[in-house]
Amino acid sequence: MKNNLPSHVGFIPDGNRRWAVDRGLPKEAGYAHGIEPGLRLYEQCKKRGIKEVSIYCFTQDNTKRPSVQKQAFGKACIAFALEIARRGAALLVVGDETSAQFPKVLKKFRQRQGAGMKMNLLVNYGWEWDLAGLKNGGLHSKEVSRLDLIVRWGGGCRLSGFLPVQSVYADFCVRDEYWPDFDPQHFEHALTWFKNQDKTLGG
Amino acid sequence: MKNNLPSHVGFIPDGNRRWAVDRGLPKEAGYAHGIEPGLRLYEQCKKRGIKEVSIYCFTQDNTKRPSVQKQAFGKACIAFALEIARRGAALLVVGDETSAQFPKVLKKFRQRQGAGMKMNLLVNYGWEWDLAGLKNGGLHSKEVSRLDLIVRWGGGCRLSGFLPVQSVYADFCVRDEYWPDFDPQHFEHALTWFKNQDKTLGG
Repeated sequence: MKNNLPSHVGFIPDGNRRWAVDRGLPKEAGYAHGIEPGLRLYEQCKKRGIKEVSIYCFTQDNTKRPSVQKQAFGKACIAFALEIARRGAALLVVGDETSAQFPKVLKKFRQRQGAGMKMNLLVNYGWEWDLAGLKNGGLHSKEVSRLDLIVRWGGGCRLSGFLPVQSVYADFCVRDEYWPDFDPQHFEHALTWFKNQDKTLGG
Repeated sequence: MKNNLPSHVGFIPDGNRRWAVDRGLPKEAGYAHGIEPGLRLYEQCKKRGIKEVSIYCFTQDNTKRPSVQKQAFGKACIAFALEIARRGAALLVVGDETSAQFPKVLKKFRQRQGAGMKMNLLVNYGWEWDLAGLKNGGLHSKEVSRLDLIVRWGGGCRLSGFLPVQSVYADFCVRDEYWPDFDPQHFEHALTWFKNQDKTLGG
């Protein structure tokens, strides 16, 4: 009998800017409101016994946005990373650390630190950068295992370059709510939905 | 003003075996019922002005299935390929032609033949095989362009290894109907839905 709990779950917390605009705030104000939902989701994953979590923080493409936005998501990302490290996560940051866009304070997490639930944060990540590693010994994300389930907020029905290799067999679940409106029920529903998906892996 | 018609559409025609079982037929009987829907969809794409189409025929993993199934999907795949070639498609077959599982009669289409709408059929395809090309000059599927839209039948919300690199920004649309129950309205709805998707490509 198969365990129907996903081992590794990916999250794409999209919709921060649209959330802010809907409230008459400047776009960049949304990101700070994404931190606390992330911490609630982290605690929920721990409680549910998820073994590994990957979160799409920001990409190399995202860094082409206006600098006020770049600063805002960078800051939110650092705050979240340091807080989960403090709470005992086994934190790995996956992204191009050779670029100035990579936050210096997160460099030590390019090697996994800690012994709790595995948390992979994609920071200054790019799918092309990731795959380029294959020319030299393996994916840049090779320490990240295959994904079972991916949940995306903000209504987009696409991966947007999120770990293309680890995503090949992942079930993909989309929520229309914007990420700052995260509710633990969203993830509970995704877990229930996941149980009912047929998993043949091509066999 | 952006043209909201996708240039390149991928199709995952899943559910042939479940369709057969629902009718009290042996599983392998489903595949033959997938050919005529494929030809209707081909004509619909041509009529709508789609420039390039990729279809998931069978994978290296699929060839591990019972041989009666393997023979049935192989035969359906060859019949479909030869018929669209006859109708003037610019046909490219993408898959590992060095294996005995690759149909000999399709070998000449490992180089694109013809000058009509581009049709890429994934035959004895594997995402690992595809990516392995990166170690030697490029993806094995490097002649296949980036996908804008992917439509899958049979209810599965996952890519199942379908062109992971070309799929990075594709909008993904799922139909619950089994593939042999294809109706042109399914694709019309997908095109309408696609128009309303926000496309930022990470910017």
